[in-house]
Amino acid sequence: MKIVPRSKVIYSFSSQHKPVEHVKHGELLLLETEDAFGGQIKNEEASLNELNWSRVDGATGPLFVEDAEPGDTLVVEILDIKVKDKGVIVTVPKSGILGGKRFNPSTKIVRISKGYIHFDEGARVKANPMIGTIGVAPESGDIPSSSLGKHGGNMDVKKLTAGTKLYLPVFVEGALFAAGDMHAVQADGELCVSSVEVAGEVLLRFSLIKGKKPEWPILETRDWYAFLACGDTLDDAATFATEAAVEAFMREYKWSFEKAYMFGSLAIDLEINQVVDPKKGVRAVMSKDFISLSSLLT
Amino acid sequence: MKIVPRSKVIYSFSSQHKPVEHVKHGELLLLETEDAFGGQIKNEEASLNELNWSRVDGATGPLFVEDAEPGDTLVVEILDIKVKDKGVIVTVPKSGILGGKRFNPSTKIVRISKGYIHFDEGARVKANPMIGTIGVAPESGDIPSSSLGKHGGNMDVKKLTAGTKLYLPVFVEGALFAAGDMHAVQADGELCVSSVEVAGEVLLRFSLIKGKKPEWPILETRDWYAFLACGDTLDDAATFATEAAVEAFMREYKWSFEKAYMFGSLAIDLEINQVVDPKKGVRAVMSKDFISLSSLLT
Repeated sequence: MKIVPRSKVIYSFSSQHKPVEHVKHGELLLLETEDAFGGQIKNEEASLNELNWSRVDGATGPLFVEDAEPGDTLVVEILDIKVKDKGVIVTVPKSGILGGKRFNPSTKIVRISKGYIHFDEGARVKANPMIGTIGVAPESGDIPSSSLGKHGGNMDVKKLTAGTKLYLPVFVEGALFAAGDMHAVQADGELCVSSVEVAGEVLLRFSLIKGKKPEWPILETRDWYAFLACGDTLDDAATFATEAAVEAFMREYKWSFEKAYMFGSLAIDLEINQVVDPKKGVRAVMSKDFISLSSLLT
Repeated sequence: MKIVPRSKVIYSFSSQHKPVEHVKHGELLLLETEDAFGGQIKNEEASLNELNWSRVDGATGPLFVEDAEPGDTLVVEILDIKVKDKGVIVTVPKSGILGGKRFNPSTKIVRISKGYIHFDEGARVKANPMIGTIGVAPESGDIPSSSLGKHGGNMDVKKLTAGTKLYLPVFVEGALFAAGDMHAVQADGELCVSSVEVAGEVLLRFSLIKGKKPEWPILETRDWYAFLACGDTLDDAATFATEAAVEAFMREYKWSFEKAYMFGSLAIDLEINQVVDPKKGVRAVMSKDFISLSSLLT
């Protein structure tokens, strides 16, 4: 099995990056990732001012997926995630959803052991490792890996855990996939701008759906699919996620817009991914009782 | 046990309304409610233009709770909810999260039986009856029962089901509680502006916490508490919900702002209530593993 080391890092999603590895349809691959700070924070006394910010929010890759062409869907199965035993959380003035308040920069190192993050006396949180950044090269331009969009990127979705699948639209030949920014745990919102930032490794399997693609990245869990939309505001992100979902229901049942819109009030859950990245993220969750994958792709 | 009939209806929350019934600490009461359209829609041919809109979005009440004084918390236990066997869903042009699109007014009547809403061939949705509008009189003024705020109101929270508790701040003597607008089911978002609007009855038990109150209404389920905040945008609602929750964690653990803010990224989930009412609603969900009720009240 191929292993891509965490030294192979990019700081943007772009068609211009040279692939560091090639994978085939059905192939397994182990990707090592650095934490969001590029491993620069070694202790709680580290000053955020001294960080080299050009080494922050990297993703390991890019990988060239054989036969992936624009208009296809890249299917990424997240088979396993392992994280290291030490994570970092920071507050950064003017950042996060309460960035309008006055507060200090601060750094906390937490131990991760026996499935828990040991945050403080009486406050240990169950670990739920997930991938913050995961995506492909956009059609054009160079999108910082700290940002997000239809190509994926820094989506920070707490449900993107082992056992899930991600469907990404392919914009360029080979897709140019990369991933990084693992969190040992994150709540919906990622309120303070960081979560438990941690290095780790993820076991992935890649496959392709030819000639069809999703409007937004789609996350699949055991029970549901979700469009992962984003926008400049939560309201915009919610609107985009809803549009994609209502259109999928129109395809699935041959319903009018009005009927699919009604059904949305009953059965499409809007959930928050994060409220702190360059764009805010909302997922439109649709139970597999009601929708099939083919209706989600066009 | 006292029963308040659905004919006792108000269209605003206000200290000026005369109570229709009195209840004591610990007392059980059965409240009948009309559907959001005041029962005016009898069939799918009914034109929305012919609706008497002054009879829409009513709430049954108000009730005078003995000994309730400004600064107290009114605790409302939702012990049981029964809904009728026929519900109404509508689309209203320019309304709902996709109100910017062109579409037609439409009305759908659905049958509710054996625990399911029979929406269409191959699309029956499990019923999960909930209360859309529930609140008390505000300190001053007259807030339409179609709107929402710190006094509660048309919060449209899908988790407000039988088996939950709601903590409302008391602003005026006797609290002047009212409730209505049941939904046989609603997803997070209530995308098209209506859900399965249905008449029904709810069994409630009232009690008081003296001299302490929550910043926003608090919903309690078996596993968690949530502040139910609202704002002109989802982003505002998310910010207000976060502020209340982070302050509660500062009280619970005597943490600094920075530490509570960090913990929020790990353990406070921001979830969407609805995106279609005069104000948008977001709940900040906090597991009982981490927070106690006393830290949520001031």
